[in-house]
Amino acid sequence: MEQRLSIVSLGVADLAASRRFYEQGLGWKVSGASNDSIVFMDLGGVILGLYGRDALADDMKLPHGKAGGFGGFSLAHNVRAKEEVDRVLEDAAKAGARILKPAEEVFWGGYSGYFADPDGHPWEVAWNPFFPLRDDGRVELPPQ
Amino acid sequence: MEQRLSIVSLGVADLAASRRFYEQGLGWKVSGASNDSIVFMDLGGVILGLYGRDALADDMKLPHGKAGGFGGFSLAHNVRAKEEVDRVLEDAAKAGARILKPAEEVFWGGYSGYFADPDGHPWEVAWNPFFPLRDDGRVELPPQ
Repeated sequence: MEQRLSIVSLGVADLAASRRFYEQGLGWKVSGASNDSIVFMDLGGVILGLYGRDALADDMKLPHGKAGGFGGFSLAHNVRAKEEVDRVLEDAAKAGARILKPAEEVFWGGYSGYFADPDGHPWEVAWNPFFPLRDDGRVELPPQ
Repeated sequence: MEQRLSIVSLGVADLAASRRFYEQGLGWKVSGASNDSIVFMDLGGVILGLYGRDALADDMKLPHGKAGGFGGFSLAHNVRAKEEVDRVLEDAAKAGARILKPAEEVFWGGYSGYFADPDGHPWEVAWNPFFPLRDDGRVELPPQ
């Protein structure tokens, strides 16, 4: 598994309010890849995502609310090719990670699964054909 | 507030076990800035920190455990000069953020405070004289 963090996703209760805070309040630029259910900002090569808190829990098959160790966020490690997703998840499992969700085709057109680190912190391993990786591994996020 | 994420800190129950997972399990390189109470890894310009879960909650003056909205992690925005910390916290407060901890001198030799975004996700604003920022704003982490 390459040493890379691609996305930090924060689960939020009210996406419009959260977007307002970051975009108008802090003055941060939002990517044109954002829509009514997700917001992306490029924080210098690593992406900050805002996503409905329940939707984020659903995505990793965790219960809603504070149960199940869900801390309201996830980290993502994006890979260059679809086949890499399964390999990275297998490697993580061999390293002692718990698989939260085996890789599957996802509604947004990619392929992804999740593992949890020893404290339950969730890592998504994702192939996203719409977010190419640069040579240095950082995600090329569409501009504003 | 510049558009930058410097560090993602994960609160962990057993630092040695967590370090073993990332370093030996996933094969990631650990920075020489690490010690018995904190571990740093450079994930391509953004840093992953492992830190005791209770110590992390203490650092932002949040109660231990699952109470108080603590999701077991924090995000950090590092700045170039000590004076910037107060200014960024003030700007965040004007944008509607709740100040979790006003800036103060911290035991590791820096100056830092915390604000919470609308969902309570904690952002540390920190000046760390030992982790200089590159021209592009990314942290220059000491190598292995």
